[in-house]
Amino acid sequence: MVTTKKQPRRSLWMFGLESEEPTDEERRQHAQEVSQRLGVTIAPPPIPRAEDLHLRPPRIKPPDPIAEFCFSDNYERALHSHRDWEMAVRGQFPNPPDIVAHPRTEEELERVLEWCCKHGYAAIPYGGGSSGVGGFTPPKEGYDGVVTIDMDQFDRVLEIDRTSRAARIQAGVFGPALEDQLRPHGLTLRHFPQSFAGSTLGGWIATRSGGHYATKDTHIDDFVESVRMLTPVGWWETRRLPASGAGPSPDRLAIGSEGILGIITEAWMRIQVRPKYRATAGVTFPSWETGYEATRQIVQAKLWPANLRLLDPELARQAAGMDGTHALLIIGFESAELPQEWPIRQAVGIARGCGGHIDDSEIILSDTGGYTGHRGAIGAWRDVFIPRGGGLATGLGLVTGTVETCITWERWPDFDVQVREALKKALQEVCGGGTLNCRFTHVYTDGPAPYYSFAGLNPGLGREHWNAVKRAASDAILKAGGTITHHHAVGRMHRPWYDRERPEPFAQALRAAKRALDPKWVLNPGVLIDP
Amino acid sequence: MVTTKKQPRRSLWMFGLESEEPTDEERRQHAQEVSQRLGVTIAPPPIPRAEDLHLRPPRIKPPDPIAEFCFSDNYERALHSHRDWEMAVRGQFPNPPDIVAHPRTEEELERVLEWCCKHGYAAIPYGGGSSGVGGFTPPKEGYDGVVTIDMDQFDRVLEIDRTSRAARIQAGVFGPALEDQLRPHGLTLRHFPQSFAGSTLGGWIATRSGGHYATKDTHIDDFVESVRMLTPVGWWETRRLPASGAGPSPDRLAIGSEGILGIITEAWMRIQVRPKYRATAGVTFPSWETGYEATRQIVQAKLWPANLRLLDPELARQAAGMDGTHALLIIGFESAELPQEWPIRQAVGIARGCGGHIDDSEIILSDTGGYTGHRGAIGAWRDVFIPRGGGLATGLGLVTGTVETCITWERWPDFDVQVREALKKALQEVCGGGTLNCRFTHVYTDGPAPYYSFAGLNPGLGREHWNAVKRAASDAILKAGGTITHHHAVGRMHRPWYDRERPEPFAQALRAAKRALDPKWVLNPGVLIDP
Repeated sequence: MVTTKKQPRRSLWMFGLESEEPTDEERRQHAQEVSQRLGVTIAPPPIPRAEDLHLRPPRIKPPDPIAEFCFSDNYERALHSHRDWEMAVRGQFPNPPDIVAHPRTEEELERVLEWCCKHGYAAIPYGGGSSGVGGFTPPKEGYDGVVTIDMDQFDRVLEIDRTSRAARIQAGVFGPALEDQLRPHGLTLRHFPQSFAGSTLGGWIATRSGGHYATKDTHIDDFVESVRMLTPVGWWETRRLPASGAGPSPDRLAIGSEGILGIITEAWMRIQVRPKYRATAGVTFPSWETGYEATRQIVQAKLWPANLRLLDPELARQAAGMDGTHALLIIGFESAELPQEWPIRQAVGIARGCGGHIDDSEIILSDTGGYTGHRGAIGAWRDVFIPRGGGLATGLGLVTGTVETCITWERWPDFDVQVREALKKALQEVCGGGTLNCRFTHVYTDGPAPYYSFAGLNPGLGREHWNAVKRAASDAILKAGGTITHHHAVGRMHRPWYDRERPEPFAQALRAAKRALDPKWVLNPGVLIDP
Repeated sequence: MVTTKKQPRRSLWMFGLESEEPTDEERRQHAQEVSQRLGVTIAPPPIPRAEDLHLRPPRIKPPDPIAEFCFSDNYERALHSHRDWEMAVRGQFPNPPDIVAHPRTEEELERVLEWCCKHGYAAIPYGGGSSGVGGFTPPKEGYDGVVTIDMDQFDRVLEIDRTSRAARIQAGVFGPALEDQLRPHGLTLRHFPQSFAGSTLGGWIATRSGGHYATKDTHIDDFVESVRMLTPVGWWETRRLPASGAGPSPDRLAIGSEGILGIITEAWMRIQVRPKYRATAGVTFPSWETGYEATRQIVQAKLWPANLRLLDPELARQAAGMDGTHALLIIGFESAELPQEWPIRQAVGIARGCGGHIDDSEIILSDTGGYTGHRGAIGAWRDVFIPRGGGLATGLGLVTGTVETCITWERWPDFDVQVREALKKALQEVCGGGTLNCRFTHVYTDGPAPYYSFAGLNPGLGREHWNAVKRAASDAILKAGGTITHHHAVGRMHRPWYDRERPEPFAQALRAAKRALDPKWVLNPGVLIDP
């Protein structure tokens, strides 16, 4: 008999688990600190309890054969509504799914998808719910019912092929649970997106997540050996192959499909032996420009560091305690097989040739698998990168956000100027001022993936202000030749810019492909493409 | 005014140019040698002149606006008929295209494609004509006319972005002409498939060609930054982006589409600075098994050698003069920036740990850009790999061919046994015996891409014997879990196995995508998918 596994309850109003939510006292204290800093008085709103929410009643009822794993309580429906913390903290869930299904087997998944297809209910595949772009929000109209299909019961590593360094893994497993199952074998997927703790393998594949590696193998794409995906017309399963040249890659059409073509249930993934050798260096540069020139030269020398992350002077000041005029480049190599002293010395040599500074004694080597970047500026930066204390600012009416993209090196300096100008102008006009910084999250031989973080300086702002800043930045990115997303996906939020970015014939091809697989257009409608 | 550039005439009956064809005397001499070796008497057939061929008259006539760049003489129509040398040398061209167009501009390309769409004529994109799988042979029925669109007038490097290491290159340029245009800038695409001299950039992209790099960046796929492709519903052009996570990659759907979705006119390609530092080592192994274990360990250590090619004992004997019991692993590193002594010593260290043998003095290093592999066993192997003396065996009725695939490491040893058994059995039954060898052309962390070469021992054999051997090998490959092609494409020849390999829903998606872009199904019909 299949049973529904109890997973830890996730917070309705912050990234993380309910058990990680701050107390009211901690929230009040944080609000006070912010009030003092900004010279205003703001207080955190009270947080509604799930049982007190007034949600629109479910419009549909699951039939017996699937009712056992379908839920329609307030918590389930609110959790699967959206990821807008400002709305959530105010108890606003105006358009929840009617039913949240937690199928436990592929047969149950087939049954619930068949039910949706039969009645034309929207079927929304759901991984960790960490989408920042409206990847799982129900459509507002056009459907008599909305069924969110939460894959959290598909949480196991099913098979390990150590010789080929690959593993068959279920799609609904969260990052930490996945690594917990590989660790005893001395193995790791080593895919650590920022959302790692709250996102799943299936979500990473469906959204082309960007992971740990800063160069070469950046996206989850490169780790996918084969995919198994349920479509309304049947199972889409590719062979396990290291590579193939047989027509356009089926995997590459599934990867990034954001749930509109099918529901991924498992994948064979390329895995790694856990690193034994590590080498880390934090190189400071007299300017942003010298920093990015060094980054370009290192990646073009094809040393392929696992880490190659450049922080602009503002971010280096905030996150690593530097002086606000110097940029910081964090270089990291790792290997299960070979000491990494040679590669890191080459990279540092190139960095120095571009004006970078680091003492030899600051190059940290380890041959015991220990982390080498916990000290000094790099350690400070790690603490900022890995999200902690989530939820403290929720409901304070602050505008904070990020935009990320990718651009070729030749256009990058102008691009950076244009995007910064647009963001600063919008922050000034919309928020009365704000802060802005940039880092490279990933780097390619032909260009960087810059990541801008912004914050408005005044409280009392809401979603519409955030939208205005985001819109200005997105317009600037598209105009200057970038992509609307390097690794945050398209969802519903990025649609207007995505529609301008992709070739029109590709949209026609994708639309037709979806129509062939999903004739009733039930799968995640509104994402990527319209009928 | 646009003029049609005269390109060197290609041979009708061998891989290469007319100017490279052997003389009748050379062919007679070669036939004598073969006769003596096999103990029979065979003579090369006379070669018909293009002007003496009796081809089916063209069924259609191009209208004035396009007639200027359309041709229907015997040479043009025969050349674009097929690449079956045994038929060609006998003057057999039963199903030639009616018209061969050589558009000189995108406007001319639009006009000829419009003409085909208007009348429902098959439109076959043509690069170098090196397809070994029937990638450009006209359909036998279903079309009132067949127009082959030869892209040879699109032969220029249009733009170079040195900073990003990328270049905008027209699709019809042949390998050598492409490199000739990059060389003065100290740059190279470094994509050298075996067909390099007789294939084009557009063909490489359309067929997912496998190139120079033996690890990591094996297929042309990884070098494509953006693609411009004419479809019947308009231009498909992607942005120049180092990477993106915006939906399924449009480039990855164009790459490998084998001309069924559109005609590629140009692409931004990632290019390289020409290597200055090289390191090469030829390591011998006491067995095939120890050789492939070493290969696996080297690629899994992520050293990413440019060259990592393993020859089985039989091939090492034939091609490198070895004793027939030892395998040979050729390891090569190259870099424009960094001396490659450290990486090659690591790779050699791993190889020795697996039982490989090489003296330190045989590790060849260069820091002047010179090739390091022209001597000894490796030099001998190079000479065999780079095709020379084409055409000598044409018409002698010998069965020679190759099959190539890809498989995970864990399954590889059994896979190798099964494929060899099937090939040997077929050679015995069909040809009364034969020879067989294997090498790895490309290697991945999760498995090798093996390449089997076979030859029948008896003359007097024809296409049907060749087909029987190929069929037996293909069946064995599919059954044992491999792909029908790692880098030779699908075309028409691999269709039966491709149809078994790809997921059925993917076929439905691809069919629908094609129908959306090419409603009259004119583009390269019969390849990859049927209506």
